[in-house]
Amino acid sequence: MYRTHTCGELRIEQINQSVTLSGWVQKIRNLGGMTFVDLRDRYGITQLVFNEETHKDLCEQANSLGREFVIQVKGQVAERSNKNTKIPTGEIEILVDKLTILNTSELPPFTIEDETDGGDELRMKYRYLDLRRNPVRENLVLRHKIGFEVRSFLDKLNFIETETPVLIKSTPEGARDFIVPSRMNEGQFYALPQSPQVFKQLLMVAGFDRYFQIVKCFRDEDLRADRQPEFTQIDCEMAFVNQEDILNTFEEMTKHLFKTIKGIDMTFDFPQLSYEDAMTYYGSDKPDIRFEMKFVDITSDMSTSGFKVFEEAGYVGGICAEGCAGYTRKQLDKLTDFVKKPQIGANGLIYIKYNEDGTVKSSIDKFFSADQLKSLGEKFNAKAGDLVLILAGARKKMLNALGELRLEMGSRLGLRDKNKFSPMWVVDFPLLEWDEDGQRFHAMHHPFTAPKQSDRELLETDPGKVRANAYDLVINGVEIGGGSIRIFNDELQQQMFKILGFTEEEAENQFGFLMNAFKYGAPPHGGVAFGFDRLVSLFAGIDSIRDVIAFPKNNSGRDVMIDSPAQVSKDQLDELKIAQIEIKK
Amino acid sequence: MYRTHTCGELRIEQINQSVTLSGWVQKIRNLGGMTFVDLRDRYGITQLVFNEETHKDLCEQANSLGREFVIQVKGQVAERSNKNTKIPTGEIEILVDKLTILNTSELPPFTIEDETDGGDELRMKYRYLDLRRNPVRENLVLRHKIGFEVRSFLDKLNFIETETPVLIKSTPEGARDFIVPSRMNEGQFYALPQSPQVFKQLLMVAGFDRYFQIVKCFRDEDLRADRQPEFTQIDCEMAFVNQEDILNTFEEMTKHLFKTIKGIDMTFDFPQLSYEDAMTYYGSDKPDIRFEMKFVDITSDMSTSGFKVFEEAGYVGGICAEGCAGYTRKQLDKLTDFVKKPQIGANGLIYIKYNEDGTVKSSIDKFFSADQLKSLGEKFNAKAGDLVLILAGARKKMLNALGELRLEMGSRLGLRDKNKFSPMWVVDFPLLEWDEDGQRFHAMHHPFTAPKQSDRELLETDPGKVRANAYDLVINGVEIGGGSIRIFNDELQQQMFKILGFTEEEAENQFGFLMNAFKYGAPPHGGVAFGFDRLVSLFAGIDSIRDVIAFPKNNSGRDVMIDSPAQVSKDQLDELKIAQIEIKK
Repeated sequence: MYRTHTCGELRIEQINQSVTLSGWVQKIRNLGGMTFVDLRDRYGITQLVFNEETHKDLCEQANSLGREFVIQVKGQVAERSNKNTKIPTGEIEILVDKLTILNTSELPPFTIEDETDGGDELRMKYRYLDLRRNPVRENLVLRHKIGFEVRSFLDKLNFIETETPVLIKSTPEGARDFIVPSRMNEGQFYALPQSPQVFKQLLMVAGFDRYFQIVKCFRDEDLRADRQPEFTQIDCEMAFVNQEDILNTFEEMTKHLFKTIKGIDMTFDFPQLSYEDAMTYYGSDKPDIRFEMKFVDITSDMSTSGFKVFEEAGYVGGICAEGCAGYTRKQLDKLTDFVKKPQIGANGLIYIKYNEDGTVKSSIDKFFSADQLKSLGEKFNAKAGDLVLILAGARKKMLNALGELRLEMGSRLGLRDKNKFSPMWVVDFPLLEWDEDGQRFHAMHHPFTAPKQSDRELLETDPGKVRANAYDLVINGVEIGGGSIRIFNDELQQQMFKILGFTEEEAENQFGFLMNAFKYGAPPHGGVAFGFDRLVSLFAGIDSIRDVIAFPKNNSGRDVMIDSPAQVSKDQLDELKIAQIEIKK
Repeated sequence: MYRTHTCGELRIEQINQSVTLSGWVQKIRNLGGMTFVDLRDRYGITQLVFNEETHKDLCEQANSLGREFVIQVKGQVAERSNKNTKIPTGEIEILVDKLTILNTSELPPFTIEDETDGGDELRMKYRYLDLRRNPVRENLVLRHKIGFEVRSFLDKLNFIETETPVLIKSTPEGARDFIVPSRMNEGQFYALPQSPQVFKQLLMVAGFDRYFQIVKCFRDEDLRADRQPEFTQIDCEMAFVNQEDILNTFEEMTKHLFKTIKGIDMTFDFPQLSYEDAMTYYGSDKPDIRFEMKFVDITSDMSTSGFKVFEEAGYVGGICAEGCAGYTRKQLDKLTDFVKKPQIGANGLIYIKYNEDGTVKSSIDKFFSADQLKSLGEKFNAKAGDLVLILAGARKKMLNALGELRLEMGSRLGLRDKNKFSPMWVVDFPLLEWDEDGQRFHAMHHPFTAPKQSDRELLETDPGKVRANAYDLVINGVEIGGGSIRIFNDELQQQMFKILGFTEEEAENQFGFLMNAFKYGAPPHGGVAFGFDRLVSLFAGIDSIRDVIAFPKNNSGRDVMIDSPAQVSKDQLDELKIAQIEIKK
C-alpha cells in the first residue's frame, strides 16, 4: 500500500498515529539539524520533519531530494510547535522514520506554484506539469463538478443521456466539417458532428421525450482565442413542450448549478428580453446586465435640432456614465480613440459633462445652448456629476459601437464584477439573416428552428421579418446557451430549406432521413445546447476556455505537447486511397 | 401546455380530475358506440374513451385516427369498469372531451410493438421508429442508468471525470487508426483515439490522482457482429496504487452496479484466477464460471497407456458432463462434428459413458478395459449417469477446443442462465505475445503495461516468460474490462519499446512526450477500462452490443439511416489538399 492517508487529510486528532504518505516534494528547508519537506498531492500539503540528531542517514537522504521527486514516507503524526493556520493540515507534521524515493525528477522547466514563471507556450508543451498547479487543476475539478451536477439535475427530471454517433455525414450548411476517410467504403467520408442536432431531433421522433448528452463537437474553423476545434456541449431536447417549458426547465438547471457549485441562491425569475429590445437598449444580442446604463435613443428628438451631424444620422443615441463628469481631456480622447477603432467604427464621440457645480460642458457647445443640453440630459436621467456619451451614424453600426462603449465604461467603472452573475434570456430572435455577399438568407439559429406561429404568413411575403421561437441564455454578456422550438412537420421543413436556397435534391440528399422521420408522427419538440467550456470558465471566473480544457489546442489547431497533427505513413494513405495534392491557385 | 400528466402516470387516486395528455396512437378499437384509443408515450399507455352518443363528432374524429398519429386530448379521469391489471394505469381511463391532432403519421414500415415484424435492415433504416419500441428504448434507459451509477460511484471516491482530446496523433502500434486531415496544418493528420491511454497516464503524472471518463473510442477494423467502429469505454486510472487497490476499487464498483441496477447483492469476493490456471482449467482467458466442469488433464497418466493417440498427444484432457450418459449416438455425433469444425480444430472426440446401471461404454473400449475406464472416471469425479468427453492433440489447440466444447455443453445443459452473474478476475497475464508471422513480440495488453517485479530479470533473458501486472474483469465468459499497472519510469519504458521492435527514433517520435513526462516525477499508477457497450448488453441480457447503441453502424461501418459515410464535394477535398486516388495492386 502506497499510503494510508492523502497529504490533505491529517489533523490534530490523528496525533501519534503511524501513517504512510506518498506525494511530490514541493519544498525542502534545511534549517541545520532539522530538515523540513513539504509533501504535496492533489489533496493538500503535509509537512515532513527529519531530525539529524536522531535520524542522521534519513536526514541526509532528505537533503538530497529535489523538487518534484516522488517519495513515500512512513512516520508518526506530531503536533507542530509552529502552526500554519493557512492550510488545513497546518497543525500537524510527520516525524519521518522511513523514506522511499519512488521516482526522481529533473528540474521542471517552470515552477509548480499557483503563480508560475512559465510562459504560455512552455506551459502548453509541458501541460502535464502545468496541470500540477493548483489553479489549473481546480478548474478541471470544477468542470467535473458542474458536469456531475448537470447530470444529477437532468436525471431527476427523467432525461435520458443518450450517446449519438461521432462518425456521421458531412453537411455543407453551417461551419466547415472535419472529415474522416472511410477505408471500407471507398471514396466516401464520415464527418465529425458540429452538434448532435438531427440525432436529438430523431430521438424525439423516437419518443425518448427527454434527451441530454454532454458531448464533444467539432468545427474546422480558423481559431480565435476562445475557440477550439473540439469543444463540449451540454445538449438537450424535450418533446411536447413549448418555449416556456424549456426556459423554465433550464432556468431551474442554471439555478441548481449556481446553488450547488457557487452557493448562490437565485430566487428571482431570469429577465427575458426580446432580440429587438436587446439591440435597442444594449446594442448586443448578449447584453451584460450586471449594470444598467441602457441606451437612450434621441434620433427623433434630434431630427430638427439644427445640428447637421444629428439631423442626418440614421441613429443618434447614447449612454449616461454616472459620476464621470470629471473625466479629463485625456480620458475623453482615449474613449474617442476607442470608438473610432476600425472594429468599432464610429466617426467620433460626443460628450456632455453635467458638472457637480451645475454647469454643463460638451463637445457640441457650439450647436446647443446650455438649456438645450440640460433638457437633453433629462432624457438620459443625467444627474450632476454624470457624463453623457453620444454616437451618431448608421443605426446598426452605431448600436454595435455604443454597445462596445457601454461595456468599456462598465469595465472602467468596475461594474463588471466577476463574482456577480446576471443571467437573462434573449428571446424572439429573427428566423433568418440576410447575407449580402451571397444574396441569400441564412438561418440565424439553424435550419430546423420553427418560426413563431404568429409570423407564419410572413414566411411567404417577407421572410426577413419572421421571428423564431429561438432563445439564448446570456450570463454577464456571455452567450452560455441557445436553442429553439423545432419544426416538426415535413412540409414546413421543406419550405424552410427552399427559403435557405436548397434545391429539393440537396435537401433530400442531406436531410431526407429527417424529413422522412417527420412523416411518421413527429411530436412537437425543442431544445437547447449549452457551451460547456464557456459555462465552466464563467464559473471559474476566467476569460479563456482554454484554461478549463485539460489538453487544449493552440490557435493553429495544434496540440504542442503531443505534436499533433502530424504526418502519417504512405501505407496509411494508400489504404484509404487518398493522396496529398498541390492545389494550383 | 401540451400535457398535465404523462401516459404512465394516472391512477385511481386521480379520478374526476381534468387532465391533458399527449402521445402516440398505439391502437384504436371501435366497439360500435364506443371507441377506445390506447395513447402511448415513453412512460406508459393510457386508455382514452370516446362515446358516440354524447360526443358524436369527437368519436368520428377518433375513428379517423391512424396508428402512430400524435394527438393531444383533454378529458376527465374515470374508473374503468373493465380493469387491466397488467399495466399500472389499468384501473383508469380518460373520458375525452377535446382531441387535437398534433401530427399525422404514414403507416409505419413495421409494427411498433415489443415483438415486431420488422427485419434487421428495415429497423436500422427507420431506427427512429425502432427506438419507439419498448425493449429497444429500455436498453438505452438502462445504458443511461448504468452510466449515471458509474459516475455517482466514482465521484464519491474523488475520481475526476476529465475529457481527453478526440483529435490526437496516429500511432501505428495497435489497431488501425481513423485519421482526419488538418486544413490548417497542410499535409498533416489528426487521428481519432483508440483509447485515451497516454492522456490518462499524463493526468497521473499531473497529479490528478484519480481519473475517469466515459468516452468514445475508435478503431478502423473489419467489423464483426459485436464490434463497432466507434465504441464507448469507462476509462479509469489511479495513482499511488498497486494491483490489489485497483481490483478492490473496481470490484466495489461492479458490485455497486449489480446492486443499484439489478438489485443483486454480491457479498462474496470475486474469485481471482491466473491466466495460466484459466487456460489450464477452462481453455480460455475469459472463463464462464457460471458452471464448474473444469478440465481434467490426464496427459501424463496416459503417457504409458498403450493407446497411441493418447501417448503421442501433447495434451490429453477432458470434461465431465453430469447426467449426460444417456446421450444418443446422434447427439454424440453432433458433438464430434462440433469439435471438428475448422475454427475449433480437434481431430475427433472421445467419450466415456458411465451408465446409471454401473456399466461403462466408450469410443475407446478397444484400447481400455472397463476397470481402466472406471479408474479414469475417478479422475473426472464421474458418477453413474455422467459422460466424460476427451480431446487429444497439440496442447494449445486442444485447450481452446475443449474450452469451446465446455461452453457448448454448458449451454446444452442450461447452465448459462442469463439471470445468473458470475464475475471473476483473470490476473498475471503474460507481458508479451510472440507473433510468428512478424517474428517479433507484441504487447499482450499494451506497451505501457508493467512487468511483474519478480519477473523483471527475465525481460533480458526470456521475455516471453515475463508476467505482467495485468488483469481482466470477466463476467459470464465475457471480458467486461481490463487494465494493468503501468510503467512509470522512462528507462523501463524505453526497454519495453525496444523489446517490441521500436527503433529509438520511432519510440521518440511517437511517445517522446510520454517518456519525457516520466522524467519529471511520475508517480506509480495503473488503471482499467471497461467496455461500456458490453457491460450494458450483459446487464440487458442480450448478445449484441448493437442493441444497446442508439444509432449503430452495420458490418460495413455504415449508418444506413443517414446513409453515411458519403461522398464529399471536391471543394472540401481541395481545401484539405487531398484527392481520391486509385492504388494499383
